[in-house]
Amino acid sequence: MSDSKNPLSEVRERIDSIDRQIQELIAERAMRAREVAKVKGEGLSAIDYYRPEREAHVLRMVVDRNKGPLSDTEMVRLFREIMSSCLAQEDPLKIGYLGPEGTFSEQAVRKHFGHAAYGLPLGSIEEVFQEVAAGHADFGVVPVENSGQGMIQVTLDMFLTSDARICGEVELRVHQCLHALTGQLADVRRVYAHAQSLQQCKTWLRLNLPGVECIAVGSNAEAARLARHDESAAAIAGEIAGKIYGLKTLATAIEDRADNTTRFLVIGRSLFPPSGNDRTSLLVTVNDKPGALYDVLSPFAKHGVSLNRIESRPAHTGKWQYAFFIDVSGHIHEGNLKEAVSEIESSVASLRVLGSYPVALP
Amino acid sequence: MSDSKNPLSEVRERIDSIDRQIQELIAERAMRAREVAKVKGEGLSAIDYYRPEREAHVLRMVVDRNKGPLSDTEMVRLFREIMSSCLAQEDPLKIGYLGPEGTFSEQAVRKHFGHAAYGLPLGSIEEVFQEVAAGHADFGVVPVENSGQGMIQVTLDMFLTSDARICGEVELRVHQCLHALTGQLADVRRVYAHAQSLQQCKTWLRLNLPGVECIAVGSNAEAARLARHDESAAAIAGEIAGKIYGLKTLATAIEDRADNTTRFLVIGRSLFPPSGNDRTSLLVTVNDKPGALYDVLSPFAKHGVSLNRIESRPAHTGKWQYAFFIDVSGHIHEGNLKEAVSEIESSVASLRVLGSYPVALP
Repeated sequence: MSDSKNPLSEVRERIDSIDRQIQELIAERAMRAREVAKVKGEGLSAIDYYRPEREAHVLRMVVDRNKGPLSDTEMVRLFREIMSSCLAQEDPLKIGYLGPEGTFSEQAVRKHFGHAAYGLPLGSIEEVFQEVAAGHADFGVVPVENSGQGMIQVTLDMFLTSDARICGEVELRVHQCLHALTGQLADVRRVYAHAQSLQQCKTWLRLNLPGVECIAVGSNAEAARLARHDESAAAIAGEIAGKIYGLKTLATAIEDRADNTTRFLVIGRSLFPPSGNDRTSLLVTVNDKPGALYDVLSPFAKHGVSLNRIESRPAHTGKWQYAFFIDVSGHIHEGNLKEAVSEIESSVASLRVLGSYPVALP
Repeated sequence: MSDSKNPLSEVRERIDSIDRQIQELIAERAMRAREVAKVKGEGLSAIDYYRPEREAHVLRMVVDRNKGPLSDTEMVRLFREIMSSCLAQEDPLKIGYLGPEGTFSEQAVRKHFGHAAYGLPLGSIEEVFQEVAAGHADFGVVPVENSGQGMIQVTLDMFLTSDARICGEVELRVHQCLHALTGQLADVRRVYAHAQSLQQCKTWLRLNLPGVECIAVGSNAEAARLARHDESAAAIAGEIAGKIYGLKTLATAIEDRADNTTRFLVIGRSLFPPSGNDRTSLLVTVNDKPGALYDVLSPFAKHGVSLNRIESRPAHTGKWQYAFFIDVSGHIHEGNLKEAVSEIESSVASLRVLGSYPVALP
């Protein structure tokens, strides 16, 4: 326990010197951020000089430079927080999200905007759109897709009736694992989990634990706690839950869709310039006639634009119209996408660019 | 909107160069942290080389060096996160707290341990003590005092029956303000707030808004939202809520106790060495006889030890015994406190050092 031994105190002296340098650099960075604010005009709020494309560019450089020992995710997280603090020197960004605090949506807010932004927990996805439209929130964060369960329709439908722009995307990855006290699959007589997790893992459970009782409880954390006191029980929970609750992990990534990601959109009121690695979301309304979808899609192929996602919804505008939500690679200001879109525009009932925004970081 | 103008791109180039240096330094810091782990032994978890007294010392240096433009609180926050990431390279610390997520207790966990630690939301304060005692959590964070409402008895009582050690304290400061749409006190006909906030501000309300209707709602955030749509209403909420909800602030720090702080204790299983600015918590049991408390307190005065807090509780050990929770300045390994304590020990039924720990940072 002695501190006076040489190897330890030498390392600590070096860490103190590193900290001194980091602090000077962060302080200078904060001053430079103020200069950016000044160039753009005095007395502005963070929203006036927040540039998502610049942030994405900075964070991509962080990933490119990273040689460890910290993971890309941790290093990006630290730079997010540094940028978040620098930006919040003026009126911080106000971010609306589906509350209450402590939800997945808040995690997405913090992952994207850091902890120096103001979080504004709201009562519904609709309210997030309204608060952004009214300018009470600078941005909103709404879930749009769960890879296990598909698109979140209420979010898509809000784009049919609102002028919201998409300014970013955030991905949270959640792998489900099976944890148990003994570490032996043969001991498992019952599985505890949140109902949604049981649903997401039902194929794996049917194949690997046929006939075992599945019991839905309030949360996966509760499931892990129950399993800790019962040698014949297992719990479905995230990767870290096993460590947290002192259980052994029997199987990892047991969800039916291996890449169990929840995707969130950052919504705002304007379009931002290209960041160098962007995605564009389009809302296209077509009349219900043969070949309509083909007419929409063929210009993308022709101009070499990759299609990432497509989802159709009945349009609210007319009885025989359909709306397609289409995600493609690239920024709307870039040549080939611009040309493809202007070709499509001539053949459809309506086309709206919902947003061009940086592809989600790790 | 053009990026190509010189002043802006010059500043951005400088920021890129700063970021490059910060990243190199953080990576080196993470490697040095691994060296500390190696000095202490291979294959350890974070708990084996986490040193709260060293962290407190590092953060106090950060405050001493800070010349802005970031506030002490923001700069300390960033260093907490950097240390949190460096520490979490091994098995991260597991921190139990009174759940669910998103509560004040979780804020205290994050303020003290950063976001790379694992948070373990638990069902009750008792459970936090149990999980720490059983080693399922490395540390626990429990509320112990709200300056408006006094000591939290359930936390104090847990120390009577458990062997928990206090390893740190965290303070969260919350000022209540009155916000309204018009910014005119004369317009206010009703005040919305959470019941607890109405209670905390009742003197101010009686003096400044006599006869005005007070309406308890689910949260202060809801109160602020209601006030935004009603010119004759005001809401009690935190300082930033006014900005967030677009209201004007009519009065600040309206709580009856001006310094409205919630204090949390970090509990663990061992005592740590001095950090240079520490507090010691003692649990003293005395028999109920005249002069008993005087006998306890006089050695502190004699040895020049400052008394920070004292709280009496009926002891669980004997019918006519009382327990005193006493907080004093200094570390139990330091001379004058050590002497005072050994004098007291000879005159009381029992004395237990609950912990010596760094005084809370901003």
